[in-house]
Amino acid sequence: MKNHTLTGPKGFRVSAVKAGIKASGKLDLGLIIADKPCVAVGMFTQNKIVASAVTVSKEHLSNNKAQAIYVNAGNANACTGQKGHNDSVTIAEKVAELFELTPENVLVASTGIIGEMLPMGNVLNGIEKAAEKIDQGSRGAKRFAKAIMTTDTKVKTAYAEVKLGSKIVRLAATVKGAGMIAPNMATMLCFITTDVNISPALLKRALKDTVEITFNKVTIDKHESTNDSIFALASGLAENNKISKQDLNYRKFAKALWEICDDLAQQMAADGEGANNAVTVKVAGAANATDAHNAVRAIVDSPLVRCAFHGADPNWGRIVSAVGFSGAKFNESKLSCKIADTFVYRNGKPADFDFKALSKQMKEKEWQVLVNLGAGKHEDFCYTCDLSRDYITINADYHT
Amino acid sequence: MKNHTLTGPKGFRVSAVKAGIKASGKLDLGLIIADKPCVAVGMFTQNKIVASAVTVSKEHLSNNKAQAIYVNAGNANACTGQKGHNDSVTIAEKVAELFELTPENVLVASTGIIGEMLPMGNVLNGIEKAAEKIDQGSRGAKRFAKAIMTTDTKVKTAYAEVKLGSKIVRLAATVKGAGMIAPNMATMLCFITTDVNISPALLKRALKDTVEITFNKVTIDKHESTNDSIFALASGLAENNKISKQDLNYRKFAKALWEICDDLAQQMAADGEGANNAVTVKVAGAANATDAHNAVRAIVDSPLVRCAFHGADPNWGRIVSAVGFSGAKFNESKLSCKIADTFVYRNGKPADFDFKALSKQMKEKEWQVLVNLGAGKHEDFCYTCDLSRDYITINADYHT
Repeated sequence: MKNHTLTGPKGFRVSAVKAGIKASGKLDLGLIIADKPCVAVGMFTQNKIVASAVTVSKEHLSNNKAQAIYVNAGNANACTGQKGHNDSVTIAEKVAELFELTPENVLVASTGIIGEMLPMGNVLNGIEKAAEKIDQGSRGAKRFAKAIMTTDTKVKTAYAEVKLGSKIVRLAATVKGAGMIAPNMATMLCFITTDVNISPALLKRALKDTVEITFNKVTIDKHESTNDSIFALASGLAENNKISKQDLNYRKFAKALWEICDDLAQQMAADGEGANNAVTVKVAGAANATDAHNAVRAIVDSPLVRCAFHGADPNWGRIVSAVGFSGAKFNESKLSCKIADTFVYRNGKPADFDFKALSKQMKEKEWQVLVNLGAGKHEDFCYTCDLSRDYITINADYHT
Repeated sequence: MKNHTLTGPKGFRVSAVKAGIKASGKLDLGLIIADKPCVAVGMFTQNKIVASAVTVSKEHLSNNKAQAIYVNAGNANACTGQKGHNDSVTIAEKVAELFELTPENVLVASTGIIGEMLPMGNVLNGIEKAAEKIDQGSRGAKRFAKAIMTTDTKVKTAYAEVKLGSKIVRLAATVKGAGMIAPNMATMLCFITTDVNISPALLKRALKDTVEITFNKVTIDKHESTNDSIFALASGLAENNKISKQDLNYRKFAKALWEICDDLAQQMAADGEGANNAVTVKVAGAANATDAHNAVRAIVDSPLVRCAFHGADPNWGRIVSAVGFSGAKFNESKLSCKIADTFVYRNGKPADFDFKALSKQMKEKEWQVLVNLGAGKHEDFCYTCDLSRDYITINADYHT
């Protein structure tokens, strides 16, 4: 059986421990240590309020090299001022000291509640414990995937292999995110390890292009976080001929990267806070890309639409009226909507359909909404989920 | 005791009946009949998908005259194609016939589920019954306020008097709206009667200016409806000197109009679907009006923020991070946030506050959030409410 975790690609060691940052006492602190400096790229939240971990990691990525990543869940270390910033710097220094690295080669990520100071005693002890356990192989990587969870109910990992010339290149990724999810340019926390041999510029390009059509297409609650970060570390140990132009090998690698990120993006939507259904909303027939985007977002950002999903109610009026206020151009006499492959509105008129049968289909785990604006050839899509009472419970009854 | 209903201003008769349009069998059809043609103005949804009632009423208002308004709840007659349009025309004709008016002087409004045909037999019988009961005085007006309710739990009416010269001018209004509420230029259904003597141009201007700072400041779920309509009928029977320029009398009248609309806007937020709290969110210190608007909307449109309201959780991190993704310019070292008059974040740093005491205050019916961006002198505000499990129940478990 293959080692389908962050330690699958050659050259990475991973561990996680219970550091006492999460109130629950669960796993909450993880480390990724590469055997040697990696080509490293990252993308971050576009929120103007950013966590200190984001500021520090951006700085440390300026040379596109990194050898270690620290992460904690349970505390975002955001809106914590100069003290919070100093804590992130101290964390990078501590990891560097234990593994004999320079602090600039250590990246830092945090997720959890905003506005509280990290319990630095627990954090520093946790880093020492995690350093001791760094040689546990895939067991450490599995614990890592658990340690980054906050309101996630499921571990989210993906793995791919691709043959470049005679060499097998491995890619692994793990992600967290279930609430405060509406990524913009980057997303939640995501960690990617790969042993591909690639130039920094092309790793960056592959990551950016991929994020745009995977994580940036997920929305759970339209609330863009202060801590979103995605990191990719490439060890080069697959020993493929170095990818340094956009050739066939680049495209094969980029496709594998897209596959694992798309897989994770769909896992995120399915595990949205309180979610029962993963729903893909697609808009076709738009006059331009902006219209396609705006129409999709008006639909998925409407709590009324997502309550109808939750109630397995094929209430297409809410979907069509969201298109109406989206600002997107449409041809009303061609405007159509399908829910789970059934026409509910066709060419500007209500369609006849079996309400009960369709409602039953909407109770399934995964289905699609397809809207055609009848105004052009552009398309866009979004991964989302239903809006349930459990979402309210998670976000009203707990101080997270 | 004064007659504080739509029949309070001189020259109006109002009635409502159970026509069998609402599945519940409750009051669902109303009529407002003026003694003579009124100066009439209206504002409508900016949604590009508009109900046939909106199309017909816009047309009938082109001469700024009207003598009658028909309204039904339980069915929006939206997305119902040519047949739906013909039904709205037939309704205006029926009312005109019974009261010996021209159909062009009859306005039409509908609210309820989108995409189903009106039960025209019930509608036409209902109009006849309502015509028979038109002389019931304030009792009819009270029934009318009930008849327009859908998921509203409370009747929403307001009344004002203002002295212009030696004459008393009376204004009355009633409104419905609890879900699919994010008005843009006009709002939900609102009916205003007044006996003021005023030119159409100034009645229109007063209405537009008022709507902009009252109903357009309400959001319950960011979903702009297909049927939003607001009508104002002025009978002129107060016999004040005709208002035909923006003088002191215009300002007195406009202020009274603002008072009743602001009162109703706050009643709407307090009665938002599933709401327990009415929360006014204000943003000050913005560099320009657009920034103030965008920051307010990012806060009130975040389900995370509104879940924290519901949980009486002074979770300012959600508010401050919403400002961060709003696109508004702010000065982070001056950025501050008050909840219910308590600083929770001040000059870019978490403030010390009594969590339990503030949480208790947040359980009260009405309170404010005040954010200062520290970047200028512009302000904006919004009336909203908490997001509760009951909102989900109302919108998931019922096909409305």
